[in-house]
Amino acid sequence: MYRINENYQKLPGSYLFSTIAKKVAAYTEANPGRSIIRLGIGDVTQPLTGPVIEALHSAVDEMGKAETFRGYAPDLGYAFLREAIAENDFRARGCDISPDEIFVSDGAKCDSGNIQELFAADSKIAVCDPVYPVYVDSNVMAGRTGTYDPATGYWSDVIYMPCTEANGFVADLPDETPDLIYLCFPNNPTGTAITKDRLADWVRYARENGAVIIYDAAYEAYISEENVPHSVYEIEGARECAIEIRSFSKNAGFTGLRLGYTVVPRDLRCGDVSLNAMWARRHGTKYNGAPYIVQKAGAACYTDEGKASIRGLVAHYMKNARTIKEGLKSFGYTVYGGVNSPYIWLKTPDGMSSWEFFDFLLENAGVVGTPGAGFGPNGEGFFRLTAFGTYENSLAALERIKAL
Amino acid sequence: MYRINENYQKLPGSYLFSTIAKKVAAYTEANPGRSIIRLGIGDVTQPLTGPVIEALHSAVDEMGKAETFRGYAPDLGYAFLREAIAENDFRARGCDISPDEIFVSDGAKCDSGNIQELFAADSKIAVCDPVYPVYVDSNVMAGRTGTYDPATGYWSDVIYMPCTEANGFVADLPDETPDLIYLCFPNNPTGTAITKDRLADWVRYARENGAVIIYDAAYEAYISEENVPHSVYEIEGARECAIEIRSFSKNAGFTGLRLGYTVVPRDLRCGDVSLNAMWARRHGTKYNGAPYIVQKAGAACYTDEGKASIRGLVAHYMKNARTIKEGLKSFGYTVYGGVNSPYIWLKTPDGMSSWEFFDFLLENAGVVGTPGAGFGPNGEGFFRLTAFGTYENSLAALERIKAL
Repeated sequence: MYRINENYQKLPGSYLFSTIAKKVAAYTEANPGRSIIRLGIGDVTQPLTGPVIEALHSAVDEMGKAETFRGYAPDLGYAFLREAIAENDFRARGCDISPDEIFVSDGAKCDSGNIQELFAADSKIAVCDPVYPVYVDSNVMAGRTGTYDPATGYWSDVIYMPCTEANGFVADLPDETPDLIYLCFPNNPTGTAITKDRLADWVRYARENGAVIIYDAAYEAYISEENVPHSVYEIEGARECAIEIRSFSKNAGFTGLRLGYTVVPRDLRCGDVSLNAMWARRHGTKYNGAPYIVQKAGAACYTDEGKASIRGLVAHYMKNARTIKEGLKSFGYTVYGGVNSPYIWLKTPDGMSSWEFFDFLLENAGVVGTPGAGFGPNGEGFFRLTAFGTYENSLAALERIKAL
Repeated sequence: MYRINENYQKLPGSYLFSTIAKKVAAYTEANPGRSIIRLGIGDVTQPLTGPVIEALHSAVDEMGKAETFRGYAPDLGYAFLREAIAENDFRARGCDISPDEIFVSDGAKCDSGNIQELFAADSKIAVCDPVYPVYVDSNVMAGRTGTYDPATGYWSDVIYMPCTEANGFVADLPDETPDLIYLCFPNNPTGTAITKDRLADWVRYARENGAVIIYDAAYEAYISEENVPHSVYEIEGARECAIEIRSFSKNAGFTGLRLGYTVVPRDLRCGDVSLNAMWARRHGTKYNGAPYIVQKAGAACYTDEGKASIRGLVAHYMKNARTIKEGLKSFGYTVYGGVNSPYIWLKTPDGMSSWEFFDFLLENAGVVGTPGAGFGPNGEGFFRLTAFGTYENSLAALERIKAL
């Protein structure tokens, strides 16, 4: 008799955002007239920009003619896109990354879930607490995390790195040495950025301790301050110890279009083995490329016109972030994030738990956010709001919160 | 010091089609003037049909307006597509499959590579020999296959089910009991179909022996004969023992658009555990949905106009298949497949090995096919040609082969 992967049975509850979606659906059914403002899941709301739409239409036309039709894409992505990425996202910032170190994919979530496959089954992972759930859950499924303690919310074999008000939500180096270190900056969920010096500490630590950094830079476009690195490869030595994951979702609004990429430098080697070659093999075996039309849309983000249009999108959401942050502050809330990131990380009022505040906000204000505890025990007492709504909705949510 | 997943190091050579691509690239560089006819990889060449192009343009327009913009898709796929699939691909054929048993994805290759994750690490897999390499390679990466013997081409812990001229390329039930049975019908690479009675034997066997059938029906649209099942769910009892994987690549020409789906029936349970729920959890954690515009394109394949346009595509390729098959036969080749499938499976002439014939055909006729040995030891002595070229190229390839 066949048996299942028992690791799946260890996963407590369902995926955070599925749980929230179910709660909101139940509320909507019970309160059919009530309007809901969704500032929970980090999903964009602005339409795709003109240059992207134009590129999509033009690529669709190509797919409709025999002379220009495209079948299977190259495993690692079309050269036109990988070259634009290497030039604009890396070389323009002084990072030495070449197109053959870039692997185009259908999104950062998939890549950050799949990347653990390259490592030994008993690898020890270190994650920030709170953390984007995919890093942990994908390692649970692979059997790396030991047992879950519902009392603490911790897995026995995971190294947690608390991100608290005390350390400014930037984790300190861990006491126990991990094999894999997941870092996300600008951070989801806390909205915090890391300085170059602090990131250099991490790169040095990884090299000295033989660890690999999985650097999730999905929110890079939101960096507004100097001295905040846009890529881990701005740090010397990162080519030997870091993988970087990027997304078109949050800068160009591609959540519904699906495009991302992962950088695996050729200098990242475990003994004789090139992790770049391993990831290429995985792509070739288990993946079949992002759609041509979507890759063309991605390339359109790197023209002058495309870049300008995307700056406009980011500016729109950052205006929301500032508005929400300043508004909440003026109502007496303690608020973090929102400067280099589209996420506002607020302290729940009156000692409410984060799920209590979720329910309170949904029932009394019709505003959906994300409970900090959903991201890990150190998220307890915090709550995430996103700037990805419309400006009108951001203002309306503020008014409703003010009236509480 | 971190360590890699050593299973990757066990994989011999690179992925079959990457190897072929490299050989062809080397030949093209050495012979710049020479025209190449590619009948190797199963990639379509005809443009997307009118109804699909129209649906894409219209969905792109929706993505460009705030009122109709779509962000993250539902994890399992949009209801409009899952309902169209359930109705047309299953209920219309008397198969009891509901939309919530359908998981929309970016293609059958990804799904057939990922599906093994649901099962125990020491599950025993059974595959046909020859076989589509992804089934085996994805299990190699997961550590299920034991050691590779370069002398035989076999993995120590895989159950191989020979598909030979003697059994009409339809595997016999294995002596040793597997946990997972990969079946692909109409078959890639041999082009052979299975009858309802034979498939019923497999379903009975799986149920009696506690095995799960992974049924890859990517080539279903090419079935032209009666008594060949279009879905495993035409067989009674399959809902309790079979997962089916489907693709839009080969019927609607979506190889460059990326769309597929997997059916995991609610009746498929391992003790108390629903595999449907497990796959939903995997989708929710490691995947983020197929693009909205591509799902709309998929739905366009199920309108009356869409269906007619796709029948036209399939008819085009099947005309190629017939032409190649009859042509080769008239030149004295022994040829299989090509009736319920776009693949022609021919015996190499003069006792040539399949890679010898690959080189011979490339060098002397400029025709690229796929060596049978690339699909497994029992593929040795055979060679796969696809009907996915243009009609002109199919004829031209025949002329060149005739002249050898």
